[in-house]
Amino acid sequence: MLRIRPAIANDAALLLAMIRELAEFERVPEKVKIGVEDLVRDGFGPNPRFHALIAEWNDQSAGYAVFYDYYSTYAGPAMYLEDVFVREAFRGRGIGTALMATIAKAAVDENRPGIHWHVLDWNEKAIGMYKALGAEFCDWWRPVLLSGDALARLAEKAHE
Amino acid sequence: MLRIRPAIANDAALLLAMIRELAEFERVPEKVKIGVEDLVRDGFGPNPRFHALIAEWNDQSAGYAVFYDYYSTYAGPAMYLEDVFVREAFRGRGIGTALMATIAKAAVDENRPGIHWHVLDWNEKAIGMYKALGAEFCDWWRPVLLSGDALARLAEKAHE
Repeated sequence: MLRIRPAIANDAALLLAMIRELAEFERVPEKVKIGVEDLVRDGFGPNPRFHALIAEWNDQSAGYAVFYDYYSTYAGPAMYLEDVFVREAFRGRGIGTALMATIAKAAVDENRPGIHWHVLDWNEKAIGMYKALGAEFCDWWRPVLLSGDALARLAEKAHE
Repeated sequence: MLRIRPAIANDAALLLAMIRELAEFERVPEKVKIGVEDLVRDGFGPNPRFHALIAEWNDQSAGYAVFYDYYSTYAGPAMYLEDVFVREAFRGRGIGTALMATIAKAAVDENRPGIHWHVLDWNEKAIGMYKALGAEFCDWWRPVLLSGDALARLAEKAHE
């Protein structure tokens, strides 16, 4: 039996365990720098930076999703889906779709025109699922990241 | 003389005018649905959804940037640059870089490890500028959007 519920502060360690599993799946385990305390502070304090859902299958933790506000200067507030993940042993049961449906309902209830996210180009199973949902692949947009030394160098050029 | 300052509520009409110019530049003028009141409410109320900067050249409005919080479950809080735009008559003076440097300084001051954004794949001038800054193009990520009827259909699948 599937149950989807909002995560609470006590779920932070579980959330981190599943974030690590996602990073293994994405082949970047070394990129996880976050700790349980960070997740507690950032997700479950007075001004949460993200919302999290936990999926349970027969009372076992089966997956999670993390999402937060996105803002389009063309269309106003929308949603950004940072992660949707189903643990290996629980795949093929529609849990990913159920997590996304819960977020879609929240988006519709809050009048948000859309949910934005990213998918890895080699993750064909996810791409097929998103296509089946009627999602649009915006391949004319290239994601860019400025970090590390390049970020510090640019910051030094700021006036005042 | 270049000056970069935080936008205030009184700048909302100016901001919208420049958002429309950006949409023209991006060849999607019909996508601008937002109004001045939306920008005032969303950007300048008690819990702003975005931050905006205005660039002035000899006291003329020359460009703007809009950015807000991004959250990585691997690395914690980062920044998302929604728009950076320089009006046509003011290009080639380093105003775009100056806007980005101001945001980079804010990111460094707040200990954010990076700034994320998207560039249109045909915007070679911007791509060249971002490469010169040392930005990383994360082309293994495909941006996805679920909206309209597809979003409504998925929302109907949500439990309870």
